[in-house]
Amino acid sequence: MKAARFYARNDLRIDDVPEEQVRAGTVKIKVAWCGICGTDLHEFLEGPIFVPSPGHPHPLSGEESPVTMGHEFSGTIVEIGIGVDHMEVGDNVVVEPYFVCDECPPCKAGNYHLCTKMGFIGLSGGGGGLSEKIVVEARWVHKIGDIPLDEAALIEPLSVAHHAVTRSGVRAGDVALIGGSGPIGLLTAAVLKGMGVTTIISELSAARKEKSRSSGVADYVIDPSQEDLAQRIREITGDAGADVAFECAGVNAVLDALLDAVKPAGVVVNVSIWGKAATVDMQKIVLKEIDLRGTIAYVRDHAETIRLVQSGRVNLKPFITGRIALEDLVTKGFNTLINHNDTAVKILVHP
Amino acid sequence: MKAARFYARNDLRIDDVPEEQVRAGTVKIKVAWCGICGTDLHEFLEGPIFVPSPGHPHPLSGEESPVTMGHEFSGTIVEIGIGVDHMEVGDNVVVEPYFVCDECPPCKAGNYHLCTKMGFIGLSGGGGGLSEKIVVEARWVHKIGDIPLDEAALIEPLSVAHHAVTRSGVRAGDVALIGGSGPIGLLTAAVLKGMGVTTIISELSAARKEKSRSSGVADYVIDPSQEDLAQRIREITGDAGADVAFECAGVNAVLDALLDAVKPAGVVVNVSIWGKAATVDMQKIVLKEIDLRGTIAYVRDHAETIRLVQSGRVNLKPFITGRIALEDLVTKGFNTLINHNDTAVKILVHP
Repeated sequence: MKAARFYARNDLRIDDVPEEQVRAGTVKIKVAWCGICGTDLHEFLEGPIFVPSPGHPHPLSGEESPVTMGHEFSGTIVEIGIGVDHMEVGDNVVVEPYFVCDECPPCKAGNYHLCTKMGFIGLSGGGGGLSEKIVVEARWVHKIGDIPLDEAALIEPLSVAHHAVTRSGVRAGDVALIGGSGPIGLLTAAVLKGMGVTTIISELSAARKEKSRSSGVADYVIDPSQEDLAQRIREITGDAGADVAFECAGVNAVLDALLDAVKPAGVVVNVSIWGKAATVDMQKIVLKEIDLRGTIAYVRDHAETIRLVQSGRVNLKPFITGRIALEDLVTKGFNTLINHNDTAVKILVHP
Repeated sequence: MKAARFYARNDLRIDDVPEEQVRAGTVKIKVAWCGICGTDLHEFLEGPIFVPSPGHPHPLSGEESPVTMGHEFSGTIVEIGIGVDHMEVGDNVVVEPYFVCDECPPCKAGNYHLCTKMGFIGLSGGGGGLSEKIVVEARWVHKIGDIPLDEAALIEPLSVAHHAVTRSGVRAGDVALIGGSGPIGLLTAAVLKGMGVTTIISELSAARKEKSRSSGVADYVIDPSQEDLAQRIREITGDAGADVAFECAGVNAVLDALLDAVKPAGVVVNVSIWGKAATVDMQKIVLKEIDLRGTIAYVRDHAETIRLVQSGRVNLKPFITGRIALEDLVTKGFNTLINHNDTAVKILVHP
């Protein structure tokens, strides 16, 4: 079968590889769609970052590059291993693409997403969504009912957003400020809006402001280069400040603005990945008793994320901005994301 | 009566001022002891910071400098205003030295310590503990039973520590790392130890290491210039990392070390006041899902803090390192703290 495999930086090949066999406790999935993640792009441009280099196999998968890429995928079960009794051939599903050890302190504490040996399907081995089929342990497979398979490919990044929202402790009726509306900022706003939270997106890019509006996920879109963000937040919240804020830009000025805009005893969740250290005015965190919380991936988020989509509280359609074939992964996928960074949201690949 | 009043930077005078009269809802307290706080020292050396300057009266107290200083005090009630029925003349008490507006969003949310107009007795007007007597609204007065009045003067900073500990969410049986053992680091360790938490103090200063040991608040004292802190934490916690950590130094290298030493999904509470912005490796916060929490002062902490002392779970005696008369406030008080910063913990003034 065809699979997009990472060999080295800027060296990604569409190979013909043997199909993996179903084992006890696993299912085989025919991949319908696989989204391209920022992580994939970083791996291609600057990697290997998460991909295990030759001679350094991942401790859980035992694999090293070349590895098949892709972790944001949906598909249909085509074969069931022994001992899997809660799924059937024909079920449409998505996958939490984890390898975990089940033995380290975070795993034992229930925080499997913080496993100290953590691996990711599509990066650390175990196949990936950028191939025709994949065999996955049933524990990580979630049925999606009648959610269309193209939208379902966005459930993985939506689960990242759901986890960030859960980390914030936000409640229906609260006001949330989202700093930056790239893919994760938009999906974070979508989860918040779906939960009944008032959403304010702060964004500079014209294309992203437009997508924030047209997708329906923002109650307010503020361009901090055009308006006084802090003043607008005071107006919207009756001088109280935002209850929670989400840093989805990885930009120091955004983080600063969120610390100012959040209410005393408010929460700022950092969702973005930072390329360098941030400068943080600790006095803001101290005098307002702000909680600055990190968030990464997801843990037990998929079930509720799927319900948000099934119930129509989150509409994923506006975020699918491209559909391409596996052969076009680099030319029409990665290159589009690199060159048209602020108009593309999620490009889906059909292997 | 005598009162130590702040006029301007380096200008603190022992004045003879009229005694304030008891009003409805207030009590008059004869001050027994008043501790000198780092905040007082900053005000003296670099102020006015919190003291309202001439022409800029505090919005709640209506006062401007000169104001009486001192907010860490204990004393005995000598007169009771109309409408105060739960206290009697002769009761020994301590005070939460707040002015709050009761109207702003934080006040309405119960976070009176984050009041947007916040004032402090002993800094913003309303008299202070560095005077013979003071009149205080009864709502802020806490009876201390048989706690000796000298130790009781430390209940205010102990409440700061108690609040920081509460912010951390730590539980009995957990492991806490305290970065820095100045007065607040020591008192934070004292609260933790009193709650049944294993305490690890990281400290460079020989005098402070010795006090950390001799006061009995530290289960482990680690000098990170002599030992590998991260390695020692791994040994002590069985590779898990500290459950919570407290930044009590205001030093970037300490903050960095705490982010490394805390477990995945751990909490770092910043208790210290920072003179400049910190550099924070956000990736540590993200990949370990750390909560970095600010903490300031106290809110509904005094009752439990008093119980910790009454029950013997916290012994405040080791932290009283000097007793002076009001006349010696600058020469034997402030100057000792400036020149012998790491041997002095808490100097008490007897007005």
